[in-house]
Amino acid sequence: MSPLRPVYITRMPSVSAIPQRLCLGPGPSPVPPRVLAALAHPTVGHLDPAFLALMDDVRDGLRHVFATTNPMTLAMSGTGSAGMETVIVNLVEPGDRVLVGVNGVFGGRLAEVARRAGATVTTVDAPWGRALDRDALAAAIVRDAPHVVAVVHAETSTGVANEIEGLSDLVHAHDGLFVVDCVTSLAGMPLEIDAWGIDAAYSGTQKCLSCPPGLSPVTLSPRAVARLERRTHKVPSWYLDLTLLKSYWGQERAYHHTAPINMLYALHEALAIVREEGLPARFARHRAAHERLAEALSALGLPFVSQEGHRLPMLNAVAAPAGSDEAALRRRLLDEYGIEIGGGLGDFKGKAWRIGLMGHGATAESVDAVIGALRTLLAV
Amino acid sequence: MSPLRPVYITRMPSVSAIPQRLCLGPGPSPVPPRVLAALAHPTVGHLDPAFLALMDDVRDGLRHVFATTNPMTLAMSGTGSAGMETVIVNLVEPGDRVLVGVNGVFGGRLAEVARRAGATVTTVDAPWGRALDRDALAAAIVRDAPHVVAVVHAETSTGVANEIEGLSDLVHAHDGLFVVDCVTSLAGMPLEIDAWGIDAAYSGTQKCLSCPPGLSPVTLSPRAVARLERRTHKVPSWYLDLTLLKSYWGQERAYHHTAPINMLYALHEALAIVREEGLPARFARHRAAHERLAEALSALGLPFVSQEGHRLPMLNAVAAPAGSDEAALRRRLLDEYGIEIGGGLGDFKGKAWRIGLMGHGATAESVDAVIGALRTLLAV
Repeated sequence: MSPLRPVYITRMPSVSAIPQRLCLGPGPSPVPPRVLAALAHPTVGHLDPAFLALMDDVRDGLRHVFATTNPMTLAMSGTGSAGMETVIVNLVEPGDRVLVGVNGVFGGRLAEVARRAGATVTTVDAPWGRALDRDALAAAIVRDAPHVVAVVHAETSTGVANEIEGLSDLVHAHDGLFVVDCVTSLAGMPLEIDAWGIDAAYSGTQKCLSCPPGLSPVTLSPRAVARLERRTHKVPSWYLDLTLLKSYWGQERAYHHTAPINMLYALHEALAIVREEGLPARFARHRAAHERLAEALSALGLPFVSQEGHRLPMLNAVAAPAGSDEAALRRRLLDEYGIEIGGGLGDFKGKAWRIGLMGHGATAESVDAVIGALRTLLAV
Repeated sequence: MSPLRPVYITRMPSVSAIPQRLCLGPGPSPVPPRVLAALAHPTVGHLDPAFLALMDDVRDGLRHVFATTNPMTLAMSGTGSAGMETVIVNLVEPGDRVLVGVNGVFGGRLAEVARRAGATVTTVDAPWGRALDRDALAAAIVRDAPHVVAVVHAETSTGVANEIEGLSDLVHAHDGLFVVDCVTSLAGMPLEIDAWGIDAAYSGTQKCLSCPPGLSPVTLSPRAVARLERRTHKVPSWYLDLTLLKSYWGQERAYHHTAPINMLYALHEALAIVREEGLPARFARHRAAHERLAEALSALGLPFVSQEGHRLPMLNAVAAPAGSDEAALRRRLLDEYGIEIGGGLGDFKGKAWRIGLMGHGATAESVDAVIGALRTLLAV
């Protein structure tokens, strides 16, 4: 053994030493036991006929939750941010005009990813906690005729829903593609890819799908695929190149990279659970949990920092208790009650809490657990 | 419910319908039950103190298998190909000269990824099944003084080991960085990142680490990090940008993206198993399984297509039986015996088989199972 080989001393004797938590932060959300069991099914090959059938199921299940018939619908082998990058690097060429609505971290990230792809980026901004102004977006679309218009549906950093329905006609009239980030909204609130004219969307598995993080559902409309096929430059990322990936997810089954087999097992099971519950019931459950939480937070004197009428059901951004060490309170919530909630990001750092009620976590029991613990901790 | 929402009919009633297989292809390798159990441990948050301690363990465990003290050692949130792209897009700037040794699919992929990153790529080629010529590599290094020299250690498409020890001094003398693909070699045969002067390496979890696919261990030497810090252009990929990721894997713990929590649980357990066995014993086990297989294949009349003296222990590329429908034989091996082996890629498509004896699969029992089945199928 080489003396250069560092000795490996573990801090965690084994994974089983990791405590169980109630995940009520901005994601990951609580993963149901059925999904964890699917995750642990023995690994098979990525070209095994049984696995290819499962991939077909996953593709169809994703079409169902996206409400689309798009042939190009798949799960990218990375987290939600990889999905964002996938959509941008496939649809944007150097010099393209990209318009991004920015009212939080993820809008800002979209703009940054588009800049790195060589786009000329313009933003329409709104203050943290407020929804994007549709008139301002519309004016910018008319003014710039962007190649791509990108908006975050559910801004996880602020708990705000941006209204996206009804924007696509204007985008299309100016020959643009309409891109929507639905990382946090998918399977937790109404979203209609086809009916709303969305050309490309991406999500993550660890929010309202209640699957562990690691995959990113992506869908592209035929209009977006036509743009992809007209590219004059190769997609800069080989790993995220949809012109190559469609041969693996399509009938050819051409080897591209080794798919994350077990993660796809888990997503298959998570999609089965969504189907069993039904999307309307699932949306209603998220809404009911949100309303129960909102009422209790109001009684605790913790006001929302997100604009009324634009609040997300699955991600509740509220002011941290005034004059408190908010990080210490969150740490006590975790250590003493086993409950995780999120802190603020960006403009809200140190000022806001983000309470997620996503997927399996969107229940009255979750609400009562976090509210009961907060009531004691805040001695209200 | 929108009439546009496609009905979701499953082909696989549940993941448990996927049969168990003995994975003796080019990866994934068989995953031990302990690793599957770790994978299914309940998901916690990516900033949970318990999870951060586990990440520190994973980083140290990766340093141990890489034989490096490199501070920048981490698991990327993607498969081995994402690791390849990570190393290239972080270390290559537009216009850089990159020299790639190509004697199979993965050398070719390295060249393609470097071209997409804007590099001027030169290759030193060897025929499929033969090792790279070190003199030719050395001559090209002296001639071109490449910014990056990249070689695949264990070429999974041909079963060939390229000799990489002793090349780094020449690369460094010409102010280059030495990049090694060790997707298939890591934890299965000797590899010494520090002692061999390797500046950047990447691997996958689904080969000799016997963990499911989905993560890519990556390590960068201080020399490579210095190059990264001197960049004049931003890293083109936001998702794979190591200047951002080091703040999450480092002391700052700054949020970048949501780590694939459960995959990191599995890698933690896989690394614990490696430590328990010890790397020298693990290398010897891979070697012994290979020798047992080689002897049996010779008795079956199936010659290696990889060059003698350069054969990988964990990936055995042999000629498919002459005059046979090799794909039909592999399908019977899968359907009747539950054993997966790989077909040929590229020049070897339809002509070669690839029998993997990786990680947990590198045993006499695996060899006897596949040989016994082949003996019956070939009626030898």
